[in-house]
Amino acid sequence: MPRSIFFISDGTGITAETLGRALLTQFQDLPFKQVSMPFVNDMEKLEWAIKRIERAHETDAEQPVVFCTIIQRELRERLTQCHAVVIDFFEAFTGRLEQVLGRPAAHVAGRFHGMGNAQDYGERISAVHYALDHDDGVTTRDFEKADIILVGVSRTGKTPVSLYLALNHGIQAANYPFSDDDFVQGGLPDRLEPFRAKLFGLTIQPDRLQQIRQERRPNSRYADPEQVRNEIRAVEQLYRRERIPFLDVTYMSVEEIATSIIQQAGLQRRL
Amino acid sequence: MPRSIFFISDGTGITAETLGRALLTQFQDLPFKQVSMPFVNDMEKLEWAIKRIERAHETDAEQPVVFCTIIQRELRERLTQCHAVVIDFFEAFTGRLEQVLGRPAAHVAGRFHGMGNAQDYGERISAVHYALDHDDGVTTRDFEKADIILVGVSRTGKTPVSLYLALNHGIQAANYPFSDDDFVQGGLPDRLEPFRAKLFGLTIQPDRLQQIRQERRPNSRYADPEQVRNEIRAVEQLYRRERIPFLDVTYMSVEEIATSIIQQAGLQRRL
Repeated sequence: MPRSIFFISDGTGITAETLGRALLTQFQDLPFKQVSMPFVNDMEKLEWAIKRIERAHETDAEQPVVFCTIIQRELRERLTQCHAVVIDFFEAFTGRLEQVLGRPAAHVAGRFHGMGNAQDYGERISAVHYALDHDDGVTTRDFEKADIILVGVSRTGKTPVSLYLALNHGIQAANYPFSDDDFVQGGLPDRLEPFRAKLFGLTIQPDRLQQIRQERRPNSRYADPEQVRNEIRAVEQLYRRERIPFLDVTYMSVEEIATSIIQQAGLQRRL
Repeated sequence: MPRSIFFISDGTGITAETLGRALLTQFQDLPFKQVSMPFVNDMEKLEWAIKRIERAHETDAEQPVVFCTIIQRELRERLTQCHAVVIDFFEAFTGRLEQVLGRPAAHVAGRFHGMGNAQDYGERISAVHYALDHDDGVTTRDFEKADIILVGVSRTGKTPVSLYLALNHGIQAANYPFSDDDFVQGGLPDRLEPFRAKLFGLTIQPDRLQQIRQERRPNSRYADPEQVRNEIRAVEQLYRRERIPFLDVTYMSVEEIATSIIQQAGLQRRL
């Protein structure tokens, strides 16, 4: 029987889930049944949540594990009375931090994934629209406003990474896909030359790229193994010759690619 | 002097930052100087990180606070020897979880924000491309493949929320912007009729929308207060008449909107 896991929060629950899931990756061989309960910010909602937890306890005949990021003390105290192992993230560290920082915690309901200030919100949304307007080389207009310009051949992850940078960090990321025409010319495409310092290249192992393209357009020239190998060879030559920093993303998640680019390009996050 | 805060991790550092920042929101009146140090996965990188921490300790004449999510024991032990308050996330909870779950933790370096399995990766990327291909009513083709279709007047957050759902949960979200033409017709646009059950509406207070549009296209008809009020009145009438569930996003972040939609529409996350 899989162990019941609950993520319970007075906000989105993103913090509780991030932390809880990170811990559970250390017990990967065990089966879990995970339930998210966001926006539990009053006693009525909490009692409803506790009913679900108690029901899991009865059905499973084992204690559920509850990862909790609720700020209000009375709600947290009520939660500890149920038949579950409650892992309370704020409880665990707040005392220690109060001691170090020399003042009491505010204990206001967690707005960590809330709206924040209007300026941050605006930066973020405009970064998303910037990424969309400058996706896939649609236009090189306003490239001077880019914080970074991702380059690479088709399907190396430029678009998801641009959007991730925009949504999570308010970074304005444009992207430009290299095509065969660009390689024929040698050198950097003229349109990119003025923005040389902002370029960051992505590359990927040909086998993996071939597989990705094959799923998208089976048996096309685009997914032909030799075509893919040639493109990758040409693009890596270009990166080296033009001294564009680049990253092999074959074994990387979107988060890892974004974090590496921020680190290697020394980007400032805006949020 | 702002307190130095370090987020140190053997992976992206997203877990360490999520935990640390959530805790620091409880001390909002204090100034902090935050530094992220991702991919610290061997002793050489750790010694380099410790040099930065020790330097902050000397400059600030106060102990820095270090939020740590490193798995390797020898690295963590070395870290605790530096002049800083180390908040070690795995240390704090792993013992308790081992006890509850009845087996030892794997202690393999945190791949929580790593690539995961290839299928998850593919789902996520194809959801991002789906959101892009079905952004802003470009096409209603393939609407049957949508998990959800966000509707609303221009600039109510449909696009960022669609992309967030795709990137973070692998949910295929299309979006369709209502325009004056749609309101003249009365009823639901014909193209949406077959997908009625997948529609989810966004609305926003007219003042806030007017402000957002004014920033985008100053003094246009689009940003005219009366035009904005009329659109919002018409769209909310439409939602009520057609029984489309909807959400007022005026005071909500992208994360809160996404979480609420998943909850209210009972969407299945795919990752």
